[in-house]
Amino acid sequence: MHPLRAQEREAERYRGATLAEFYRSTRARTMQLVEPLSAEDCQVQSMPDVSPTKWHLAHTTWFFETFILEAVLPDFTPFHRRYRVLFNSYYNAVGEQHARPQRGLLSRPPLDEIFRYRAHVDALMEELIASRDDEEIARLVEIGIHHEEQHQELLLMDIKHVLAMNPLRPAYRDDLLQVRHESLPIEWQHSDERIVEIGHEGKDFCYDNEKPRHRSLIPQHSIANRCVSSGEYLEFINDDGYARHEFWLSEGWDWVQTESIEAPMYWKRQSKRWVETTLGGSRPVDASAPVVHVSYFEADAYARWAGDRLPTEQEWEAAASAATTRAVNDLQSDVLHPHAPRDGGGMQQMMGDVWEWTQSSYAPYPGYRTPDGAIGEYNGKFMCNQYVLRGGSCITPRGHVRSSYRNFFPTHSRWMFSGFRLARDLV
Amino acid sequence: MHPLRAQEREAERYRGATLAEFYRSTRARTMQLVEPLSAEDCQVQSMPDVSPTKWHLAHTTWFFETFILEAVLPDFTPFHRRYRVLFNSYYNAVGEQHARPQRGLLSRPPLDEIFRYRAHVDALMEELIASRDDEEIARLVEIGIHHEEQHQELLLMDIKHVLAMNPLRPAYRDDLLQVRHESLPIEWQHSDERIVEIGHEGKDFCYDNEKPRHRSLIPQHSIANRCVSSGEYLEFINDDGYARHEFWLSEGWDWVQTESIEAPMYWKRQSKRWVETTLGGSRPVDASAPVVHVSYFEADAYARWAGDRLPTEQEWEAAASAATTRAVNDLQSDVLHPHAPRDGGGMQQMMGDVWEWTQSSYAPYPGYRTPDGAIGEYNGKFMCNQYVLRGGSCITPRGHVRSSYRNFFPTHSRWMFSGFRLARDLV
Amino acid sequence: MHPLRAQEREAERYRGATLAEFYRSTRARTMQLVEPLSAEDCQVQSMPDVSPTKWHLAHTTWFFETFILEAVLPDFTPFHRRYRVLFNSYYNAVGEQHARPQRGLLSRPPLDEIFRYRAHVDALMEELIASRDDEEIARLVEIGIHHEEQHQELLLMDIKHVLAMNPLRPAYRDDLLQVRHESLPIEWQHSDERIVEIGHEGKDFCYDNEKPRHRSLIPQHSIANRCVSSGEYLEFINDDGYARHEFWLSEGWDWVQTESIEAPMYWKRQSKRWVETTLGGSRPVDASAPVVHVSYFEADAYARWAGDRLPTEQEWEAAASAATTRAVNDLQSDVLHPHAPRDGGGMQQMMGDVWEWTQSSYAPYPGYRTPDGAIGEYNGKFMCNQYVLRGGSCITPRGHVRSSYRNFFPTHSRWMFSGFRLARDLV
Amino acid sequence: MHPLRAQEREAERYRGATLAEFYRSTRARTMQLVEPLSAEDCQVQSMPDVSPTKWHLAHTTWFFETFILEAVLPDFTPFHRRYRVLFNSYYNAVGEQHARPQRGLLSRPPLDEIFRYRAHVDALMEELIASRDDEEIARLVEIGIHHEEQHQELLLMDIKHVLAMNPLRPAYRDDLLQVRHESLPIEWQHSDERIVEIGHEGKDFCYDNEKPRHRSLIPQHSIANRCVSSGEYLEFINDDGYARHEFWLSEGWDWVQTESIEAPMYWKRQSKRWVETTLGGSRPVDASAPVVHVSYFEADAYARWAGDRLPTEQEWEAAASAATTRAVNDLQSDVLHPHAPRDGGGMQQMMGDVWEWTQSSYAPYPGYRTPDGAIGEYNGKFMCNQYVLRGGSCITPRGHVRSSYRNFFPTHSRWMFSGFRLARDLV
Repeated sequence: MHPLRAQEREAERYRGATLAEFYRSTRARTMQLVEPLSAEDCQVQSMPDVSPTKWHLAHTTWFFETFILEAVLPDFTPFHRRYRVLFNSYYNAVGEQHARPQRGLLSRPPLDEIFRYRAHVDALMEELIASRDDEEIARLVEIGIHHEEQHQELLLMDIKHVLAMNPLRPAYRDDLLQVRHESLPIEWQHSDERIVEIGHEGKDFCYDNEKPRHRSLIPQHSIANRCVSSGEYLEFINDDGYARHEFWLSEGWDWVQTESIEAPMYWKRQSKRWVETTLGGSRPVDASAPVVHVSYFEADAYARWAGDRLPTEQEWEAAASAATTRAVNDLQSDVLHPHAPRDGGGMQQMMGDVWEWTQSSYAPYPGYRTPDGAIGEYNGKFMCNQYVLRGGSCITPRGHVRSSYRNFFPTHSRWMFSGFRLARDLV
Repeated sequence: MHPLRAQEREAERYRGATLAEFYRSTRARTMQLVEPLSAEDCQVQSMPDVSPTKWHLAHTTWFFETFILEAVLPDFTPFHRRYRVLFNSYYNAVGEQHARPQRGLLSRPPLDEIFRYRAHVDALMEELIASRDDEEIARLVEIGIHHEEQHQELLLMDIKHVLAMNPLRPAYRDDLLQVRHESLPIEWQHSDERIVEIGHEGKDFCYDNEKPRHRSLIPQHSIANRCVSSGEYLEFINDDGYARHEFWLSEGWDWVQTESIEAPMYWKRQSKRWVETTLGGSRPVDASAPVVHVSYFEADAYARWAGDRLPTEQEWEAAASAATTRAVNDLQSDVLHPHAPRDGGGMQQMMGDVWEWTQSSYAPYPGYRTPDGAIGEYNGKFMCNQYVLRGGSCITPRGHVRSSYRNFFPTHSRWMFSGFRLARDLV
Repeated sequence: MHPLRAQEREAERYRGATLAEFYRSTRARTMQLVEPLSAEDCQVQSMPDVSPTKWHLAHTTWFFETFILEAVLPDFTPFHRRYRVLFNSYYNAVGEQHARPQRGLLSRPPLDEIFRYRAHVDALMEELIASRDDEEIARLVEIGIHHEEQHQELLLMDIKHVLAMNPLRPAYRDDLLQVRHESLPIEWQHSDERIVEIGHEGKDFCYDNEKPRHRSLIPQHSIANRCVSSGEYLEFINDDGYARHEFWLSEGWDWVQTESIEAPMYWKRQSKRWVETTLGGSRPVDASAPVVHVSYFEADAYARWAGDRLPTEQEWEAAASAATTRAVNDLQSDVLHPHAPRDGGGMQQMMGDVWEWTQSSYAPYPGYRTPDGAIGEYNGKFMCNQYVLRGGSCITPRGHVRSSYRNFFPTHSRWMFSGFRLARDLV
Repeated sequence: MHPLRAQEREAERYRGATLAEFYRSTRARTMQLVEPLSAEDCQVQSMPDVSPTKWHLAHTTWFFETFILEAVLPDFTPFHRRYRVLFNSYYNAVGEQHARPQRGLLSRPPLDEIFRYRAHVDALMEELIASRDDEEIARLVEIGIHHEEQHQELLLMDIKHVLAMNPLRPAYRDDLLQVRHESLPIEWQHSDERIVEIGHEGKDFCYDNEKPRHRSLIPQHSIANRCVSSGEYLEFINDDGYARHEFWLSEGWDWVQTESIEAPMYWKRQSKRWVETTLGGSRPVDASAPVVHVSYFEADAYARWAGDRLPTEQEWEAAASAATTRAVNDLQSDVLHPHAPRDGGGMQQMMGDVWEWTQSSYAPYPGYRTPDGAIGEYNGKFMCNQYVLRGGSCITPRGHVRSSYRNFFPTHSRWMFSGFRLARDLV
């Protein structure tokens, strides 16, 4: 089935009469993610980019409280008046924010109190959803739910980083499955120069940055039918890829040298083999699985080494829209790590394994307008010095994946589940 | 006359039998630029981005010596064996480089010695040009000349910064003219959605990053026929533009606050009026002239405040290619500061006033391949986290301006002569 | 009673047959300090200087395990082999250390596990103390106990800082008493030039840095009989003390300007009055109490403003040895904040209120030798760029206070309970 | 002859009727120091601690202009009104200062203009000295002359650093002599515990920090009769001294590791031997000469390695006052590098070779009072976190050396000509 079709069907389950159910199941899933963690685990912030689990739990709740309850309820009283600042991420229109690098210092409110905060807001939200049949409220609730889904992925990325900083190397879950399949040779999908429609289509939910849908000219090119595997990436390492300037962007070369980068994040060489930290603990690197936790710099350097390039986001989206593909895994699976699919053929590994770096700088689509109000700060103000990743990873909620989805990170980031596939020009 | 035509004619003067003349006049022009400066002025590096004048003089010479004389002459002996490292800017393929932020520490070699270095290399180069009729050598000489032209502009940008850091506020030249003309109202040039050819055309010199010429789809839009003026920019300032987060990219907002930015670089408020430092000293801001020395962040914030946006580089190039326009000024004029043209009508201020920020991230054109060898480091490795500026400024050598030229800087840079024009979507 | 006498008597209670009791009571007191805190509170590290409560609990246990159990027990097995690195503070002789600024990232081991670690080591230690009558072991146990007492004070200093960083302003304990007494005028104690004996005397425990006892010449001078009060310090503030360079050391002046320092740490101006954060929450500043949480720079600037100076540590010790004084409070009181004593007369506020900055750089006494082995790193290697504080604060364990005790901190530190008294030269 | 005697005699030459001569010869000597340098050399600032030669030339002139001419002349007009800020080093009482790290950016005023500035002020000063017989003016002139002498040494230290940063390794002078003598075994001078008089005696000029002369108790100890030689220091290096934590202060150990320190500043290992950069260019390390360009950390680590310690400044001064010693060299010699004396016996190498680190923190003497006015900022405000060096180096002006002179630097500094001698406790 067409992937957009599949998503639409899934989305339909949430829409209309079952918005309440969509809300409830999403909120419950967040709570499930926290189950393996102690209050202390939920407290820690291992770098400024990372937020404590507790903060994710509170901020997603704050989002509903601030943008819906406060805006809509006539007799609104905040759960706690200081939360407005404490759990504001970056909405200047809402007011001040607790400094991001200091989120991990907030031992109070304790985790239990945040659970109460969630329950309190959930009760009010469910009442609101049940009592009001208002298009605008429904739209905001939907944004809030998708926002929470985003934070579910962030929460897992972040806790992976937190636990990996600990020399005791604790696993997030000890019961995760290790799935391994053979990797098949890359097939190249040819595309002639053509005008394609890019951007979200249909009435399903999407973020503002996926619109407006517009026409775009993609050049003649080929795109790989799967991601670069860890085994292939190892050849780059073994060919001294990290020590040869000719493959690297100038900024990437500085980064490699200043940070002494020699392999993907979470990889460690142990005598003769490579092991990697996963959410299930330390494991030998799976040569067949897509390489994961690489920066834009590394993806780009590999591509140059291979004599190819990264695809543009338009090329990626065109390929995804044309393909029959499903998300391999999501954060509700018992896997939480990318692996090669059972069998190949056609476009592979588009969704549910790793986010794929494209060569496209994150920029507004033609005709894009920042929405009014605080919600306008959601996406638009980040449109510079970041690059687009497409596809969704093995820890992305299934309903959060779609071919028009634009994720974005700075060129040096790699604590998200980031990999890449190759493209090549046809001369 | 069509601007490309004009340039071609000018270029013709340099080509063929007169490559030697082109070489000689370019090298002589560099020496003229240094005339108003003392050896001490030529020594100073006021920030890591800036290079000392002396270093520019040496590095441009090193370029000819290393990439041509060393490669071509059978009995090549370097002028000084340590210069290979000292004056290597960023060519890893050539080997080590003297650390960029320490260029200003090199009191030796003295300026006089660098003059001798130039004369030495010039003698060998002129002999080489005269004696060899070799297409490949001619190509390299041409690159070297254009490289030197680039550094002529850098030299002026840099010395402006050096002198502006000095509380004595010395002028680069005391004999510069102040040109002022009325600014006419902006006219909007409409463009339908269409496929345009982007990139360098013809046999004239261009950099690798201007190629390959390729087809690109530009959306329906309008583009302003002139740049935003200082007077218009003042309205943004007076409307608290620098203090209202809603106009700023997130990274720009951090920059404005961390650096306490309140106006374009070189502007200072003096009681009730604004003055700016120019190469001719301190002057009242000319409300009619294009605003200059603004960062991408500022250009983008102004555009949001105005309800418009920056053009893409494709939109800019399409407009420039269609227009009848000439460079207003260049570095051989006695002006060295942007001003409004004498009269309006049609596309204005495309060249010879300010470099214009576009919203386009600096990226390879479809089919772009980094050239082999050290020369491949010239452009390609900088294609990330920078944005494209188009048009050429009042201190750009006249022969160095063309509609396909892609200049690029990081989003916070503004010591170059950077301004911008607006574009808008048509809905 | 002579203060040394009082301490000796107290100490006697711990010595000989009751070393076990001394051990047990000290360890138990640490556990009591943690009672008001959640596991999350115990996790947080609010700046590199601060350690998480959990880390203090583990490190003090590590000290006994590493320096005694491991050294003495023939069949020693560590509680956890990674703890050797995780909870090593700064003993290079023991080996690697977990990076200090990353102590707050260790959500594992959880607090409960550290409690088990403590119980495990306690059982072995008590067995060892009961079974061996060995002078050297007793000496090490005693060091370990005093080491733990030091960390009891650090734990309170640190948790005060952690909680004060929280905008919710939680108190460490809600049941603390507020004690206020009138402050009496300063009396000046005169001393002629004379040779005094400085350093620890007798057989009681002391640290290596308090020895050898030696002769020192102190000049003719006077010393204040009490500390500078918050009310007096307010006069300095109100006289623009923080804005007048003439009172400040050059490095202090840089510090004041770079850090925008305007008052003691934990002070905040609220409309017309000053409030301060205490372990019992926010309170109006008590003008009669000794000013607390000031840096060496502030103490020194106040002294210059007042026309006086800080005492040397020799002057302080001579005054303390001659005086009849007792610690006003300690960490087992229900006060945990300095206050003026009920009545004056004689030398006041020597112990049990605030640590007092002296003008003495922390340096070895004549004839001092660093002890051999890891324990030699306890004190000696810190003898540079720090200044000596004397007297013991209201959160210092009572048995840990003595007139020869040398505390030391860098000149900008002020999260410890630091105040000062004045001295003056007699001309 | 007693060294103080010798100095007094020398000083007498300058006093009374010949203050003018003293002024003139000092000013002329500064100009001689600049002779080997180009205007470009005089421009460069190689680190914030270093000042450009041009700045030294101007600042010493500013000192006379600001503290004498401006204060005394009724019709005073400054040479240039901006110089008051540009050449103010750190006198807050005078007003604002040009930022220290930006001294190297001032290409204007050019060196020639500074020469004119010097001539202008000299003319006025000489007229003033000739026309006024005023004790207070004479005192200020004398301070200004000694201030200039200090800057003569700073100028040489700084230009050594500037030239050493240059990969071309230029020498300050190519005509310097290399003097080498055998190093004799260390003899230890015994001292019983005794009270000594410390601080400047007599009517000769001294700085405020050398006073008041006061009684001090020094313990029984021995002091080495000469400095540690480079050969001895090499044994420490060869014994892995830089890699063994047990010899280092904690802060020193951090410094060694962070900065990758492996030898004295200016030393470089060349295959099997060590060479060092001197003012006369690169030379093999002279094993007999006192080791030079070491930090307090290195001096202290060596002393621990040797089982000894650094002397206190009182021990040093007591030894110097009792000895018969003369400065080996000064900045007017043609040597400008330390060397062993021709023959030994008695206290050696006290003056004219290297500044000697003592273990004494720089602190006020008992009874010290900061002088009133701007001149009070000369010394007092630096009395923290620095350590005292004694003796004067081979580039110190001869008249600037005396046994009571207190030089001071932070513990990591080593671009001054710093070495050390050992002391030991007698148990």
